[in-house]
Amino acid sequence: MADPALSLERLDVYVASIRPEYERMLGGLVEIPTISADSEHKGDIGRGADLALQYLRAFGASAELVETPGNPVVMGKLLTGPANQTISIYNHLDVQPAQEPEWMRNPFTFHVEDGRYQGRGCTDDKGPALTALFAARYAVESGIPINIHFIWELEEEIGSLHFEHFVQSTGDGLKTDSVLVSDTVWLSRDTPAIPYGLRGLQGARLVLETAQKDAHSGLTGGAARNPIGELCQVIGRCYDALTGRVNIPGFYDDVVPVSEEEMGSFLSSGFDVDKFMKAHGLNSLRTQDKREVIQRIWCQPTFEVHGISGGYVGPGIKTVVPPRAEAKVSMRLVPRQDPLEKLRLLRDFVKEINHDVRVETAGSLHPYQGEFRGAYADAARRAIQFAFGKEPAFIREGGSIGAVVTMQKYLRTPIMFIGLSLPEHSYHGPNEFYDWGQASGGIKALVKYFSEVSAIKGR
Amino acid sequence: MADPALSLERLDVYVASIRPEYERMLGGLVEIPTISADSEHKGDIGRGADLALQYLRAFGASAELVETPGNPVVMGKLLTGPANQTISIYNHLDVQPAQEPEWMRNPFTFHVEDGRYQGRGCTDDKGPALTALFAARYAVESGIPINIHFIWELEEEIGSLHFEHFVQSTGDGLKTDSVLVSDTVWLSRDTPAIPYGLRGLQGARLVLETAQKDAHSGLTGGAARNPIGELCQVIGRCYDALTGRVNIPGFYDDVVPVSEEEMGSFLSSGFDVDKFMKAHGLNSLRTQDKREVIQRIWCQPTFEVHGISGGYVGPGIKTVVPPRAEAKVSMRLVPRQDPLEKLRLLRDFVKEINHDVRVETAGSLHPYQGEFRGAYADAARRAIQFAFGKEPAFIREGGSIGAVVTMQKYLRTPIMFIGLSLPEHSYHGPNEFYDWGQASGGIKALVKYFSEVSAIKGR
Repeated sequence: MADPALSLERLDVYVASIRPEYERMLGGLVEIPTISADSEHKGDIGRGADLALQYLRAFGASAELVETPGNPVVMGKLLTGPANQTISIYNHLDVQPAQEPEWMRNPFTFHVEDGRYQGRGCTDDKGPALTALFAARYAVESGIPINIHFIWELEEEIGSLHFEHFVQSTGDGLKTDSVLVSDTVWLSRDTPAIPYGLRGLQGARLVLETAQKDAHSGLTGGAARNPIGELCQVIGRCYDALTGRVNIPGFYDDVVPVSEEEMGSFLSSGFDVDKFMKAHGLNSLRTQDKREVIQRIWCQPTFEVHGISGGYVGPGIKTVVPPRAEAKVSMRLVPRQDPLEKLRLLRDFVKEINHDVRVETAGSLHPYQGEFRGAYADAARRAIQFAFGKEPAFIREGGSIGAVVTMQKYLRTPIMFIGLSLPEHSYHGPNEFYDWGQASGGIKALVKYFSEVSAIKGR
Repeated sequence: MADPALSLERLDVYVASIRPEYERMLGGLVEIPTISADSEHKGDIGRGADLALQYLRAFGASAELVETPGNPVVMGKLLTGPANQTISIYNHLDVQPAQEPEWMRNPFTFHVEDGRYQGRGCTDDKGPALTALFAARYAVESGIPINIHFIWELEEEIGSLHFEHFVQSTGDGLKTDSVLVSDTVWLSRDTPAIPYGLRGLQGARLVLETAQKDAHSGLTGGAARNPIGELCQVIGRCYDALTGRVNIPGFYDDVVPVSEEEMGSFLSSGFDVDKFMKAHGLNSLRTQDKREVIQRIWCQPTFEVHGISGGYVGPGIKTVVPPRAEAKVSMRLVPRQDPLEKLRLLRDFVKEINHDVRVETAGSLHPYQGEFRGAYADAARRAIQFAFGKEPAFIREGGSIGAVVTMQKYLRTPIMFIGLSLPEHSYHGPNEFYDWGQASGGIKALVKYFSEVSAIKGR
């Protein structure tokens, strides 16, 4: 393939020339705290969407805001002709909250240092979204015959509640030949990874109120109920936190064992237990066995407690019996498991243990399983090889992207994942960052991918 | 007894005349947030102590601040002559934190409405302290032959850590014939109560750290440890929160069964389960059986969780695996149980369940058991009858006052409890208040008590 657009030299000149523009645009996005979990940031969601529309239009794309009953979706189109292949790139522009005490700078002040871009949302997923935008502009301007759609969601971090509404209401406007999702994480800087399976998620809040106010534990303790203690008991019955084993009856139903072929591929993917621990700041694991760790994070469902609150948490100790306690929990689910069915199992089990605990749903995401063979997988492999000089590992990923399942259901096209984040980027954690190495390499990889995809026949 | 000092008419004139002075002085004390649990309020502790010294001196008492390695103790003396009986009145001027969301006003802005005095510390224990001070001035000025010592502690709410140091360093200056403690709660407005037993307390913090920062529950969940889940498991093993039964081996050792005589007295004390629930804002109890409730709150040890924290507790849900969790717990203990021995049992048991959980001690208070017969009990009974026209019930109380045990050990004199708080006063809870009915009645009752005590022979 002697396409001059794919001369690495020319691409290097391009990425070097756009670096200040890339950084300015990323900074603009990151400094708008588009926290979808917090309704107080509703205005920021709107401001983020407006800026995204501006960016798309400045890049020559048509752009519109598609309203939903929740947050809007930003839709952009960079078209070259109806005879050409169409690819739809999915990213999201909402971010996780950033209240962690470990942040060393304001999470919403963009900071550039030594090619690192710091701030909440830099790697998840604003940096990759802009990486794809710059690659798309180059591809189209260089004459690669491809139509590129941009689908930028603003509710991914809270479970893509209205993405299905968006897909249904947009209808034919979403017609495409394939989807590219750029919102996943490599195994390490040296090991690019292309996931073809995602876990699902069912979130829930467990809430228990036993009184109207703090009571004195001396005057009432022994007779008064303790909502924290009761909630701990419920959680302790739901799973064995030491082993991770979930005790909810029926929880493991529908789990499909991983084939030896897949496990063999996972084991040779370059996944490394020590690097995994280091990248995520984990002091110890439930198991150190590599096969077992891979099983647990990619192929098995989980029960998790994300947060708990109740009673006095200030300095010292305050001997109250608190009136209320709440835990935020979730179940990660693997292909074939149905979130709402597992929610029902959780609710039944909790009610059996403690009838007074309210189980409130908090987001459902179906698990996803796609293909790791075929023309698009080959194109992705070649794109990564072209830009980074390394073979990607085809793996599963333990996270969940609700929109992927919806696109699989309605668009009925191949979906490929070319993520650009690294484990050390602190995805969902404090001091999140992205870096120029992944951004510039990502632009080259995606240009190559567009070129490869444009040549795929049989749409 | 035709003592003119004890003419109810004269006493009524006195209390009516001092009401504005009482309210002004209580307001002054309440508006200093003497929160001993929070080191940020160290300065307020000092300001509270200074104001207390001023008050004592303005009432004609000698007053001094006795320093300890912790908070100081305010000591006052109103003397009538070495041949007379000496009584030492114990109160405390530190208060509980007041972070409860239910507060309808600033807890440290004193508010008077319809004879109710609102603000943190009004009933626990600043209001009763001033009640005793006004009674003492009247008694001495009326010629009742009694020496009155005031011991105002500033660390009661955090377990009287340095009270023993105070007692030891003050030595002979504390010599007394009896002690009066005014820091307990009636059964109801209609049922005055004199407790002769208190539970002890052993506090602890359970802390678990398994990582350095939040991790993404999709990327790490299943392999990563969850410190909230593990802490819930520990708590769920320590006790059955539904029944209150504690599972720590040896926990119930040394519990002395209540005699049928005592239980009979408790059952006829006027204690009422519905009133108890209403007064403390409890929606339901572990049992509705009156005998069982009394057993649990006065005569049995407990395990309690006062607060728990870990992970994300903001709006919505954030799917992290948190790095750290902490629970504040305590064990209330009954006479003959040793706090430090129970702490050792707790620590051993927790380590057995989960070796990584740190168990940090947070205050030890020994249980107390005194007498409900004899000259001082008779004096207290007559004092309550005189001022409130009702017979007091001799009960136990489930709370803990560390200083009482220390005074029992070193002063070796009778200790009597004439508390003035009511269950509805929201002891340790939001919207705490005291009222003029209890203050004015309390002044009369204490004047009568001083008069009765002054006549006791055989010191």
